[in-house]
Amino acid sequence: MIVLGIDPGLSLTGWGVISAQTRDKIIPLQYGCIRTKSAETLSERLQNINIELQKLIDTYNPEVVAIEELFFLKEAKSVAAVGQARGAIVLTVSLNKIKLFEYNPRHVKMALTGYGSADKHQMQHMVKTLLRLKEIPKPDDAADALAIAMCHVNTARTLK
Amino acid sequence: MIVLGIDPGLSLTGWGVISAQTRDKIIPLQYGCIRTKSAETLSERLQNINIELQKLIDTYNPEVVAIEELFFLKEAKSVAAVGQARGAIVLTVSLNKIKLFEYNPRHVKMALTGYGSADKHQMQHMVKTLLRLKEIPKPDDAADALAIAMCHVNTARTLK
Repeated sequence: MIVLGIDPGLSLTGWGVISAQTRDKIIPLQYGCIRTKSAETLSERLQNINIELQKLIDTYNPEVVAIEELFFLKEAKSVAAVGQARGAIVLTVSLNKIKLFEYNPRHVKMALTGYGSADKHQMQHMVKTLLRLKEIPKPDDAADALAIAMCHVNTARTLK
Repeated sequence: MIVLGIDPGLSLTGWGVISAQTRDKIIPLQYGCIRTKSAETLSERLQNINIELQKLIDTYNPEVVAIEELFFLKEAKSVAAVGQARGAIVLTVSLNKIKLFEYNPRHVKMALTGYGSADKHQMQHMVKTLLRLKEIPKPDDAADALAIAMCHVNTARTLK
C-alpha cells in the first residue's frame, strides 16, 4: 500500500510518501514540501497547492491519503489559513477518488512513540529510526507528514 | 458583466447571480444555496460543493466571482468549517480561471446601504429593493450572496 501523508498549511504543506507491504516493512519513497508565497493571491496559492499535489498523486499513485486533523487550539487567523489550504487539499484528493483518513496529532504521536504527548524531537527521531533514514527529514513539516502516513499504516485494519 | 456572489459555508453556501450592464441596471438571474449534510464526510461535503458550484459556473458563465472575506471574530471551530469550504470554493473558481474578488462584510454593507453597520434586515430590504424582487430572497445566505455580488458591481472600476 502506498500512503501519502500530508501536514497541511497555506505557506508550507509537508508531504511524505511511504510504501508498506506489512506493518514492519515500511519504505520511505520520497518526502518534501509545497511552499506558496504570501505575495501571491489566495487563488494563486491554492491553485499552486493543487498543481503540486496533483503531480505527487500522478507520480506515486497513492491508495490512501492521511492528513492531520485541524485542531482549534490555535488562534482563529491561523485556523483560517490552514483551513483554506486543507479545503483545497481535501477537494483535490477527493476529485482523484483517493480514500482520505484524518488523524489528530495526539493519535499520530501515540501510534509512533506509544506516548500521546511526545515532543517534536522524539517524533522526528522515531520517523528517522522507523524509516531507517540517515538524517531527520527537513523541513519539520515533511517529517510530520511521514509520521502521519506511518500512523495510518499502524492504525489501518488492512494494508490491502 | 455576470457576477456570481458567494457566501461560503460548509453546511450552507449561499449563491446569487446578477447581470450588470451599468451600475444602475442590475438584473438578478438566479439565487439559491448549496447544502451539505453533517452526516457526510468532509471529502463528500467539499466534493458536493465543488460539483454544485461547477454546475453554476457552467450554467451562468460568470466573469467574476465575489466572495465574502473570512473574518476571525467567530470561534475557531466555526472558522475551520467555513475556511475549508472556502478553500474548496476558491480552488474551484481558480481552476475555472475566473477572477475572484473578496469583500469584507462591512464593505458589503457600506456599498449597499451607505452604512457599514447596517443590520441584517436593512441589508435584505436593500437587496430586495435594488433588484426589484417581490420578496426577500431566502435563505438569508442567498440574500447575502446577492449583496456581495452587488457590492462588486458598485466597487469595480469597470464593468467590462
